[in-house]
Amino acid sequence: MPSYVAPTKDMQFILHDVLNITQAGIPGYDDLEPDFTSAILEEAGKISTEVLQPLNVIGDTEGCTLENGVVRTPTGFKAAFEQMKEGGWPGLDMPEQYGGQNMPYVIGTAVGEMFSASNQAFTMYQGLTHGAASAILAHGTDAQKDTYLPKMVSCEWTGTMNLTEPHCGTDLGMMRTKAEPQDDGSYKITGQKIFISAGEHDMAGNIVHLVLAKITGGPEGIKGVSLFIVPKFLVNEDGSLGARNGVSCGNIEEKMGIHGNSTCVMNYDEATGYLLGEEHKGMRAMFTMMNEARLGVGMQGLSQAEAAYQNAVEYAKDRLQGRDVTGAKNPDGPADPLIVHPDIRRSLMDQKSFAEGARAFILWGAVMIDRAHRNSDDDADGLISLLTPVIKGFLTDEGYDMTVQAQQVYGGHGYIEEWGMSQFTRDARIAMIYEGANGVQALDLVGRKLAQDGGKHVMAFFDLVKSYIKDNSGQNEDFDRDFLEPLKAASKDLQAAGMYFMQNGMKNPNNALAGSTDFLHMFGHVCLGLMWAQMAKAALDSLASGAPDTAFYETKLATGRYYMARRLPATAMHLTRIQSGADTVMALDAANF
Amino acid sequence: MPSYVAPTKDMQFILHDVLNITQAGIPGYDDLEPDFTSAILEEAGKISTEVLQPLNVIGDTEGCTLENGVVRTPTGFKAAFEQMKEGGWPGLDMPEQYGGQNMPYVIGTAVGEMFSASNQAFTMYQGLTHGAASAILAHGTDAQKDTYLPKMVSCEWTGTMNLTEPHCGTDLGMMRTKAEPQDDGSYKITGQKIFISAGEHDMAGNIVHLVLAKITGGPEGIKGVSLFIVPKFLVNEDGSLGARNGVSCGNIEEKMGIHGNSTCVMNYDEATGYLLGEEHKGMRAMFTMMNEARLGVGMQGLSQAEAAYQNAVEYAKDRLQGRDVTGAKNPDGPADPLIVHPDIRRSLMDQKSFAEGARAFILWGAVMIDRAHRNSDDDADGLISLLTPVIKGFLTDEGYDMTVQAQQVYGGHGYIEEWGMSQFTRDARIAMIYEGANGVQALDLVGRKLAQDGGKHVMAFFDLVKSYIKDNSGQNEDFDRDFLEPLKAASKDLQAAGMYFMQNGMKNPNNALAGSTDFLHMFGHVCLGLMWAQMAKAALDSLASGAPDTAFYETKLATGRYYMARRLPATAMHLTRIQSGADTVMALDAANF
Repeated sequence: MPSYVAPTKDMQFILHDVLNITQAGIPGYDDLEPDFTSAILEEAGKISTEVLQPLNVIGDTEGCTLENGVVRTPTGFKAAFEQMKEGGWPGLDMPEQYGGQNMPYVIGTAVGEMFSASNQAFTMYQGLTHGAASAILAHGTDAQKDTYLPKMVSCEWTGTMNLTEPHCGTDLGMMRTKAEPQDDGSYKITGQKIFISAGEHDMAGNIVHLVLAKITGGPEGIKGVSLFIVPKFLVNEDGSLGARNGVSCGNIEEKMGIHGNSTCVMNYDEATGYLLGEEHKGMRAMFTMMNEARLGVGMQGLSQAEAAYQNAVEYAKDRLQGRDVTGAKNPDGPADPLIVHPDIRRSLMDQKSFAEGARAFILWGAVMIDRAHRNSDDDADGLISLLTPVIKGFLTDEGYDMTVQAQQVYGGHGYIEEWGMSQFTRDARIAMIYEGANGVQALDLVGRKLAQDGGKHVMAFFDLVKSYIKDNSGQNEDFDRDFLEPLKAASKDLQAAGMYFMQNGMKNPNNALAGSTDFLHMFGHVCLGLMWAQMAKAALDSLASGAPDTAFYETKLATGRYYMARRLPATAMHLTRIQSGADTVMALDAANF
Repeated sequence: MPSYVAPTKDMQFILHDVLNITQAGIPGYDDLEPDFTSAILEEAGKISTEVLQPLNVIGDTEGCTLENGVVRTPTGFKAAFEQMKEGGWPGLDMPEQYGGQNMPYVIGTAVGEMFSASNQAFTMYQGLTHGAASAILAHGTDAQKDTYLPKMVSCEWTGTMNLTEPHCGTDLGMMRTKAEPQDDGSYKITGQKIFISAGEHDMAGNIVHLVLAKITGGPEGIKGVSLFIVPKFLVNEDGSLGARNGVSCGNIEEKMGIHGNSTCVMNYDEATGYLLGEEHKGMRAMFTMMNEARLGVGMQGLSQAEAAYQNAVEYAKDRLQGRDVTGAKNPDGPADPLIVHPDIRRSLMDQKSFAEGARAFILWGAVMIDRAHRNSDDDADGLISLLTPVIKGFLTDEGYDMTVQAQQVYGGHGYIEEWGMSQFTRDARIAMIYEGANGVQALDLVGRKLAQDGGKHVMAFFDLVKSYIKDNSGQNEDFDRDFLEPLKAASKDLQAAGMYFMQNGMKNPNNALAGSTDFLHMFGHVCLGLMWAQMAKAALDSLASGAPDTAFYETKLATGRYYMARRLPATAMHLTRIQSGADTVMALDAANF
């Protein structure tokens, strides 16, 4: 059975030594002293390891069951959900007005990594609720907020997001779900939605569905899509539950992973719905919370990679197999542990350097979101919008690969469900798909975000990297050679790719789009390279100031050197691919595939 | 439900236009005229698509069940196995003397790709039998051959290979299974073996286990390992079945995939065994069939990638989502098919160029095996020994990645088991692990094969590439630019990596081993680059000679150009990683992971 240790120490290092959050000048950050964040992280780590993680394999094995319209979650989920609610975790970063604790998003993100790493399928129930509550918070009327938010912030009621229909996922303009206006200002919602995570289950008194639908007589296509609140049980004026609404779960899907989360076909049959936000502006309402939601999915990529990595390390230390070619390390035993073998180390270093770099990247992104919201900072908002597809696409692609590598360390045992490594890959796989498949992230990055506001945000990113290098070079030769020079080279590759797109995308946009996934990946590497440079600098500073626990900082430096030497050079390959243009990609007629 | 079309046309192209098998000068190849091979391939394709493929999802869904020591295979497997036997497929490349058809291995390989693509779990029952029969053929006494081979060649009896024990897989020197010599020359075998594919099932009258065990009193470690024949039912002198032997299936594993194949814990309790080959030479006996077995696993990587690709193409043509940015391709429909989108094409071209390149690589390898065996050609034997870890490791790593890419084309539907794309990835995953995990393949390549016979075989490989480039350059500018120049560059990278290992591996072998997986992958790319150059040349020749079906050859050229431009440049990245040496890989103490 796999285990999980909450990486709170690494989180503290990133929050305080690297991101210096108390100095960030963001409202609410002044309180985030190390002792305070440590107390929260330790508490969240405790519930993750003691309550959520033991249920992870159970959730996978039992899955959810549907009987007579009722979905049962796996054994223990309901009790654990109660514990989460009692601890106030679902409302951690929600407004106090609705029962939340008003903590910054960055704290919710750090805590969320641990919840997700210990049990992704379980954590989705509250994650979806958080997303739906955020939408109501951003677009609801005061009455809607008062009706739904207190119950959703506490997770007494949970929420869902209903976008996909059988014939459309990415291209929501084709949606068929209809909303018929009623005399009382409500709507009758009719249609079928699929892939609805947490669509029906037995852990909440009510389920608040946010549903995209087209108001009859409205504009064609995506411009005619509106967002509706459709509660499972109608809510009376006094807040008590009324009649059952015309929404039901028709089926739950058999999936590759996240078995503990019910993925539902939801049928709406003249269900009563209430417009959320403006008519025909449903997509905009949906997109306001997209940065957070996608960052949350990127975090799932990290979280599964981290959990899988931890177990791979333990196995590599325990399992005796073969001998170190440079001399036995366990001469009295029958063989040396796997961890002596260079290729096992390569794999573990890939995983470790990814997970720690990804953690810094996500927490940096979360700080940007806080800055955008709490300081109304448009530059921060623009930069996080640019980086959102990178966080989502790169961290879930890479995160998945890392779970596969971790599984590989186990050899044959990695393929046996009993050992739990297969679940990490099967659960991680979904994060590459939902919340916008990674190809769509790449399209969003190259087709939309690069040119947004006249290319201002990507220029700001390059300036940021350039300034960082300039401000930190010339102080330490080793640091310059091991960190700044590789970062400079990688950033130059990324700029060259952007230049190629500008010069060749005009005459044929396919020259840009054919390189979109490569661009997303090279962007991700540059971001992780930047994170590693910053982490290495922080580690060097701590060592210079005589901080205790030198092993932690030395390890940080060594892990960073690995990333810069072994992973970051991938940017050159991506650039070569991009510069080969669209011709070979687009050459075939569809019939000749 | 997924579908499968047998790629017989592509196989014919490779066998005849590229490899020119009838001109190869290998005994038995003279008969392999295009009409003849076509007839076999079409027939095998028919049984693959009509019989095996429809059982693939059923096998995954039902799995095998163990009750009172009896393993039941999924619905339909038994009847299909009878059909395979009636068609004589299991003995295709086995000697006529034992009921086989004595066809070259290259034909068995081509046919095997289709069987495996349509149903990997099912095909393993006969694949394992083939391996065990080959071992008896190579090392058995005449009496042993007469007793077992006729029944195994027909698959009336099936076979297994028993290597792994709970505490040792790669490092078999630690094995504990004992063989106690008896007065009658037989042995009593006692111990537990795990991960035994097809260890127990309901499709054969007898199961012939080949078991590695240590004869009591023999040498320590790997030098004391011998190979034994341990039939489930003892065989009487007249060939009829006798008493049940002391071997039983203790459990079947719940696995990530290949559910239709029973993966058994086999318990040997004083089971009667017969020495196969020489005492204490068990590993050597096992290794004689290693090249074939590993090529067969490499083929599984290809086969799952091919099957997944075919379905991804169909989905990309059918599924309407979004619009071609350069102008609508389906203006009368609600959206364009996915296949118009550049990133979907990139993914499909990755898959297509891999599958076709891999097919050529494997069939080329199979010709080398035939040449080694049928012509007793040591050079061919040396070259295929060198390339075996590349075929196994590269094609299963890449094959798996391609199934993940194919699944990704389906978006959310790719994650739902009903659509069948998840099964391709789950089934493909095992091929990276069994028959020597891919890290072990990389170690075999860099630690053993490179230096084998004084480095003669790797030099022969480089000479072969060099000669090919020299012999074919200067005739067609486009061909030189699109194919030969990239091949030359990639081959140069590979040589530089080999040179790095020679110069730095002496002082510290970790400098070579830390780059072993990168080296394996760059070697694989160079091999596929060579295959693509050869296929492109053959296509150009066919076009020049006015062959019909120009679309086929044009497509071949375009697909090859994609590989050379977009995939082959990965060699430079691998070289950079390798040249960064072992320091960053080995820097951490085990405690600091």
